[in-house]
Amino acid sequence: MSRCRTGLLKASNILRSGNSFVGRQQWRTKVLSVENMNPHVKNMEYAVRGPIVIRAGEIEQELAKGVKKPFNEVIRANIGDCHATGQTPITFLRQVVAICTDPDKLMNDPSYPSDAKDRARRILDGCSGQSIGSYSDSAGVRVIREDIASYIAERDGHPCDANDIFLSTGASDSIKTIMKLLMTGESGTDRAGIMIPIPQYPLYTATIAEYNAYPIGYYLDESNTWALNIPELKRSINEARDKCKPRGIVIINPGNPTGQVLPRENIEQIIKFAKEENLFLMADEVYQHNIYAEGSAFHSFKKVLMEMGPEYNNMELASFMSTSKGYMGECGFRGGYCEVINLDPDVKMMQIKSISAKLCSSVSGQAVMDVVVNPPKPGEPSYDLFEKEKNFVLGQLKEKARMVTEVFNSIDGISCNVVQGAMYAFPNIKLPKKAIEAAKAAGQKPDAFYCYQLLENTGICVVPGSGFGQKEGTYHFRTTILPPLEKLQVMLDKFKVFHEEFLQKYK
Amino acid sequence: MSRCRTGLLKASNILRSGNSFVGRQQWRTKVLSVENMNPHVKNMEYAVRGPIVIRAGEIEQELAKGVKKPFNEVIRANIGDCHATGQTPITFLRQVVAICTDPDKLMNDPSYPSDAKDRARRILDGCSGQSIGSYSDSAGVRVIREDIASYIAERDGHPCDANDIFLSTGASDSIKTIMKLLMTGESGTDRAGIMIPIPQYPLYTATIAEYNAYPIGYYLDESNTWALNIPELKRSINEARDKCKPRGIVIINPGNPTGQVLPRENIEQIIKFAKEENLFLMADEVYQHNIYAEGSAFHSFKKVLMEMGPEYNNMELASFMSTSKGYMGECGFRGGYCEVINLDPDVKMMQIKSISAKLCSSVSGQAVMDVVVNPPKPGEPSYDLFEKEKNFVLGQLKEKARMVTEVFNSIDGISCNVVQGAMYAFPNIKLPKKAIEAAKAAGQKPDAFYCYQLLENTGICVVPGSGFGQKEGTYHFRTTILPPLEKLQVMLDKFKVFHEEFLQKYK
Repeated sequence: MSRCRTGLLKASNILRSGNSFVGRQQWRTKVLSVENMNPHVKNMEYAVRGPIVIRAGEIEQELAKGVKKPFNEVIRANIGDCHATGQTPITFLRQVVAICTDPDKLMNDPSYPSDAKDRARRILDGCSGQSIGSYSDSAGVRVIREDIASYIAERDGHPCDANDIFLSTGASDSIKTIMKLLMTGESGTDRAGIMIPIPQYPLYTATIAEYNAYPIGYYLDESNTWALNIPELKRSINEARDKCKPRGIVIINPGNPTGQVLPRENIEQIIKFAKEENLFLMADEVYQHNIYAEGSAFHSFKKVLMEMGPEYNNMELASFMSTSKGYMGECGFRGGYCEVINLDPDVKMMQIKSISAKLCSSVSGQAVMDVVVNPPKPGEPSYDLFEKEKNFVLGQLKEKARMVTEVFNSIDGISCNVVQGAMYAFPNIKLPKKAIEAAKAAGQKPDAFYCYQLLENTGICVVPGSGFGQKEGTYHFRTTILPPLEKLQVMLDKFKVFHEEFLQKYK
Repeated sequence: MSRCRTGLLKASNILRSGNSFVGRQQWRTKVLSVENMNPHVKNMEYAVRGPIVIRAGEIEQELAKGVKKPFNEVIRANIGDCHATGQTPITFLRQVVAICTDPDKLMNDPSYPSDAKDRARRILDGCSGQSIGSYSDSAGVRVIREDIASYIAERDGHPCDANDIFLSTGASDSIKTIMKLLMTGESGTDRAGIMIPIPQYPLYTATIAEYNAYPIGYYLDESNTWALNIPELKRSINEARDKCKPRGIVIINPGNPTGQVLPRENIEQIIKFAKEENLFLMADEVYQHNIYAEGSAFHSFKKVLMEMGPEYNNMELASFMSTSKGYMGECGFRGGYCEVINLDPDVKMMQIKSISAKLCSSVSGQAVMDVVVNPPKPGEPSYDLFEKEKNFVLGQLKEKARMVTEVFNSIDGISCNVVQGAMYAFPNIKLPKKAIEAAKAAGQKPDAFYCYQLLENTGICVVPGSGFGQKEGTYHFRTTILPPLEKLQVMLDKFKVFHEEFLQKYK
């Protein structure tokens, strides 16, 4: 906290009037204080790494120092960080990146498979000086952009132009780049409005706050597997019209934190709505490989839009993808991309210009993305192992999604939509009045109070629903489904006991 | 270009009055146009990847198609991209990162040295799940932050706290994070003013434009080896006082594009000036390993500030570093960090919050940074080779810096300050009146005209001085000194011939 706010104000008077050196020396504390810093940064919130997660870290340190707790370890179910919870990397993927990193040696290592070497050679040939240590084009290494385009074309059955692909530092970086283009004025109806789901992944509210845009929150329909209901979309945009200029809509499919997979008809309805309202479509599709429920299938917004015919297939759409999720879970490499279609060519020039000052995203992250979109093919030396590893991870996730849904729904006072996809459950908890009062007395939101109690009593770290947004008077939390099966079972058992005791305590 | 601006205006009337669906359908073209996009993004410029570089890429494609040119290849001297111009990676560095990438295999590979394995083990032990595929803390892997702190403490002879270290996606990302904190209002004297050198590295003007801040340009003194003259600093800030709220000063040392290394006294003067004017210090020190001239030495701003005693050693300072430059030139890994000292603790909390939404920088880039700040020590298996490779690169750069300075100064109408450090020369070219007129006729800035002629006639791609800023009526260009010695010699020979013919043509 700046130590002397009035001092600062006085000082600026001194500066403007007399400009006396002594005057300056007397008041000087900090140039940058919470009072005078960027107000938009102050407004940013990112619950996935918020205060409860900081507390979890403290508890880990306390445990390490031998402090006695009713548990031996913290179970971090707060973030979709696959390798951190024990998932092992895909062999072929790491082989390719290792060869790209030390090609002089590993290109000649007979124990690396030939297809990994071929792939590494292909990527290196696309790098200046054949080194992943050189900058790539701002949009990424050309051959990797082409591989991504082929992947999308095959996935959707519609052409994809490599010039529409932009690699980035995770998907987050692409999301920020696109949202930045949409920003307009500073206030009133000049200010850009961005439609986002509630609950949402907090990157969106954080970015909207940072850019001083207006968040137009539309509620997902919890009673209908977190679907997007069109009347609710209309309600939210209509109520926002005198507060901002609505410019874009974010859809997260499969859902984070809500785990739903949108049916095709719902996507069609959303596209029609976006067209009527003249909105730029932003489809967060980073969980496109994570589909578990029977009858659920991933439909990309691009595919649906293309198949809706000439009235819709010229709409502007950005779709985001990441190396961090799926079966690979390579968060640390920070690979990601967006495909942007139907963009005005002059705007595209501006987009390219705006990313060029960042130079490029990590080329090793780009190499990881290349493997994700272009895995080994049948008959290639690494195919069988790759498929086995991939199917193992996805099979485990499917089982965990089932287990989590089932257990939460078996607990009194908790209901949980089927985890159809992604990596999270977002159960609804009915909190007793006394617990809500106790939370108020502790100066906490009721769901945060619940999650802190859970953490302190069991070591389980989940994120309160208030960090993602939820309907007034409802309470939720987000948990990942990532811990290994046995650990997840233990976690759910502990959770159940905690919840029953909590209900008992605040009955 | 949006196809129908008046249509759009009319449409919004339709929307506001009747909201008729038919009305909407008739006018709809693009949601996002150059007219209605973020105006600040439109104002961004980044010359290092500007139009002349795009033209260089086209020429390369023309050459590949067999188009006849007076040269066989494009020499890209526009960007400090070491590996792209043939520099080979440091063996130990790549070994460590390769082992981190495929530890199951390479940790047991007897042909990798034990110190590379030890280092990789240490880094992996610092990663969640012992995988570089997991997210790190937003500020970076703890042990790497500690290694950076040790490096800085040893470099400066003053303590460094690992909690002040923030790893980032290259130095650029850190620079943007810090500048973002300093932003204030939108216009007038509420708008944040940031002092930047002219000439400057265009990331600064691009970031200032993006954040709608006010650039307070101070001219470097070309007649005094591009020093920062205090009267000029005072002139620039005084002239800006009614246009913005001056908040910070950027110093690039060693200089980019100007190649100077600031003497210690100059740094002391700058620190005193910043204190008088209540400015946040931002020291771009990414070229701290690149010092070539006899008598030049790198003095970090932190060291100087610390040694100036209690009146100054509590000043706020951010210093930026990168894996992309130095002797390693690992641009593609996007490693970087900033050290931020004396920051208000509450502001630091805000900084941490603002970077947490980005999750973390590439962990492989962080691993590269670890090797840079903690190279093998005498007696360790990789020490000799590491020193040999490092000294070779730095020795070659020193020779190239000498050669470039000498050749440019031997050419009629060109003068060039000694390249004391960094990776660039920024020669001054006296353009004949007729050339200036020809440029005007071609609708180009005179230095851009010169650089395009150079590119089209010789294949040499350099960046016009106007992309970095220069005094009105003077003309420059920036060239890297990176091409291998023999190629650099050829480039300089070609350059000399071109320049003489150019002078002849426009005499």
